[in-house]
Amino acid sequence: MDLRNRFECDIAFLSEQLSSGQLTSEELARRAIDNHETYGTTLKAYKCLQPEKALEMARYSDNLLASGVPYRALHGIPVSVKDIYGLEGYPIFVGSSKELPAKWQRSGPFVKSFAAQNAVFIGKTHTVEFAYGGLGVNNHWGTPQNPWDSESHRVPGGSSSGSGISLWEGSAWVALGTDTAGSVRVPASFTGNVGLKTSLGHWSTEGIVPLSPTLDTAGFSTRTVADAQLVFHAISHLEAYENVCRQIEKQNEQDQHIRFRIGVDDGLMWSESEPDISEICLNALRELENDNCQLVSFEFPQAKRAVDMRNLGGPVSVELIEFLNSELPEWFDVLDPVIRQRIKMGGDISATEYLRRVREIKSARKEVKEIFHAIDVIASPTVPISPPLLSEVSSPESYMKKNLLSLQNTTVGSFLDLCAITVPVGLDRFGMPVGLQFMTRAGSELFLLALGLRIENIVRNQKRMPF
Amino acid sequence: MDLRNRFECDIAFLSEQLSSGQLTSEELARRAIDNHETYGTTLKAYKCLQPEKALEMARYSDNLLASGVPYRALHGIPVSVKDIYGLEGYPIFVGSSKELPAKWQRSGPFVKSFAAQNAVFIGKTHTVEFAYGGLGVNNHWGTPQNPWDSESHRVPGGSSSGSGISLWEGSAWVALGTDTAGSVRVPASFTGNVGLKTSLGHWSTEGIVPLSPTLDTAGFSTRTVADAQLVFHAISHLEAYENVCRQIEKQNEQDQHIRFRIGVDDGLMWSESEPDISEICLNALRELENDNCQLVSFEFPQAKRAVDMRNLGGPVSVELIEFLNSELPEWFDVLDPVIRQRIKMGGDISATEYLRRVREIKSARKEVKEIFHAIDVIASPTVPISPPLLSEVSSPESYMKKNLLSLQNTTVGSFLDLCAITVPVGLDRFGMPVGLQFMTRAGSELFLLALGLRIENIVRNQKRMPF
Repeated sequence: MDLRNRFECDIAFLSEQLSSGQLTSEELARRAIDNHETYGTTLKAYKCLQPEKALEMARYSDNLLASGVPYRALHGIPVSVKDIYGLEGYPIFVGSSKELPAKWQRSGPFVKSFAAQNAVFIGKTHTVEFAYGGLGVNNHWGTPQNPWDSESHRVPGGSSSGSGISLWEGSAWVALGTDTAGSVRVPASFTGNVGLKTSLGHWSTEGIVPLSPTLDTAGFSTRTVADAQLVFHAISHLEAYENVCRQIEKQNEQDQHIRFRIGVDDGLMWSESEPDISEICLNALRELENDNCQLVSFEFPQAKRAVDMRNLGGPVSVELIEFLNSELPEWFDVLDPVIRQRIKMGGDISATEYLRRVREIKSARKEVKEIFHAIDVIASPTVPISPPLLSEVSSPESYMKKNLLSLQNTTVGSFLDLCAITVPVGLDRFGMPVGLQFMTRAGSELFLLALGLRIENIVRNQKRMPF
Repeated sequence: MDLRNRFECDIAFLSEQLSSGQLTSEELARRAIDNHETYGTTLKAYKCLQPEKALEMARYSDNLLASGVPYRALHGIPVSVKDIYGLEGYPIFVGSSKELPAKWQRSGPFVKSFAAQNAVFIGKTHTVEFAYGGLGVNNHWGTPQNPWDSESHRVPGGSSSGSGISLWEGSAWVALGTDTAGSVRVPASFTGNVGLKTSLGHWSTEGIVPLSPTLDTAGFSTRTVADAQLVFHAISHLEAYENVCRQIEKQNEQDQHIRFRIGVDDGLMWSESEPDISEICLNALRELENDNCQLVSFEFPQAKRAVDMRNLGGPVSVELIEFLNSELPEWFDVLDPVIRQRIKMGGDISATEYLRRVREIKSARKEVKEIFHAIDVIASPTVPISPPLLSEVSSPESYMKKNLLSLQNTTVGSFLDLCAITVPVGLDRFGMPVGLQFMTRAGSELFLLALGLRIENIVRNQKRMPF
């Protein structure tokens, strides 16, 4: 059994093994850690991986099961946690050069909901400093390496920069991330994984170091949509495994007959994408058209409103600067100069300008709801560009440019409070994974998972990507 | 039957008359309008009262009843609406010199919930310009006159400045107001009425012109606590009248045994009150002590935090200035110069300073929750001073000073997100009404109503105030 094969060895398979006693949580955790050591030491997914701690947690899960606690859907499943989450017993750096005060170590509700499932935390993954960047670059701790290019150091996507690698190397089946402007989706797309950006407030952001409360969401990535569906259901209803499976089965039966109306606009999400990336995404959509879906052209001026607002600075940097001033004043002077410069650019606005931006965001959020009368989801490339080489983003100017571009299409959903999923649908001219993004109205995550599952099956059957 | 006698002719009495057919909504509306014409024309409660419109609504209510629609708790009851609410078919000025665009006329959910009860809107009451002031002064339309001083023009309290007068004169039994820093409570206290400031978000503020979204709440005043209780239940559950009465009866049975722990602190809410006002409030509390309540001394540093934050400007003026810039840019230049000056003072802060203030407010809100382990409610004079003579607040300096003081004790609950009630408990040295304020944790409005009812019964039985 190669744990790294995402389809053969998905969470459902592991659950069967674990619940029937053919595999223990401890064995699984040990193999996850071995995988990291075999495949991932040069890739640097983790800021902090303490094998003994993970194994102890796994043994605890085994003991629970032995003592008759019902098997839950994520029981014993290895989970990696972005180092922006508090996780009891682990130091927290949020990608900065200094450890944060102890109060930030406390686990919040989202992390606790995985603990309540008796999942096993493998370790804390690298993040961009204070999550403020989409490429995954970190000059304090080194930039994790994109596993899809074994020759050159390409960026892994950020800010949840270790998350995709932890899935790829087979050390985790779920990678907790956060998404403010694309920080779950971009690294998932760059590393050939599935990323779910939830609606604002769907899961609590308590116990997570904030970047921008106006936009921050808790989310996760997985290796397959089927895994994402299982995790989403499991976290939403703390039930025994078999109940969760029954729910999913029922849901999928209903969903297979939906004739999704997939909106494709002619705006910047497509026009600014590199041609091969657009082509791969369009091909995937055409396959969905053959599978009882409908492609619909539509006008999407709100996408431009969102990107314009982002280009202006949005609320992010001023919210971050205020947070640092109030909560971590000593961190400001030791920021990576590029991050500091970017933050400073946004820190100098007036209160009325800030409130005007928030008003503009709310207004666009209200307006975009109208779109979903005529279509069910909006499709686009997740990221318009290939994962850049690290050397391509070494100057502040090139970094800024690629960073803005890498987050462009994901930003749209963040500003408009849409939920979104990215699903890998092929490889680009460099052999790097391409993600297809679906976005829809807040609260309709189940819809995205259903459509994601459909494209995943097509991609899998047609072997459009090596898995 | 003198409709103006608040105890003999409360909403429950009217409901009996109306539901049994001894009184029609139209007759009641006609008498309400007559009362305004007899007692209230010089007091100027209303910005807009169109008798025909009110009578038409009353006839509609009568017809509904005749056609078999079940009698609801506020069926046919005259309601006045502060001219900060959109009310379909009525022009809206929000105390400014110009009528607002038509979109602001639309009724929001709170107004609609009274319409759904088949209540009768009598008219729109005066407000301070954009609700930005606690005294009730309006230089565009004239300052309504406090009915308790028949010789001199004393202010009615603001910003819901016509609301208390509409109750006093017998033209309304419920007066819809808004409370950002005391705008329901101050006018209720100044005019001998009961005012309820609800918890943030308890009722939607949609359809209300915003002053400060961080603090704005929808609320109302009534002539008695019993009326307030009826209204609160009726609006919370749209049920038939008898069901609402049954709920209230059950609630009151439970509540009569509560041994309320009433917190009295030694901070600025008491120390800055005029001695006769403090004395009247303390006497009322001593009566409650005799009635199975417990007075508890406690430390309340958060009150000072709230007042300090307010003195610094808080979030109010900057939120108002941004609203005007974005939504009503032409209104800025025609503001009353005093209001404009006050707004401008707060408009010039940076975004980080604004966010710091919001953080400080949230932090104090979190901290204050701890207080309610040792006490159930916090008691204080509602307003530390007597309603000033209009002549006493004619200079900008004297206006500023009295305005700050009049809002001081109510501001505390607004910044700390407490819900609050004011109940009249006596007359001060000028023969003006004195309100006693109870505040408690957000969401516990029912608790306030129960305690308010207890002090109301004492005041009534001891004839501490002429009614």
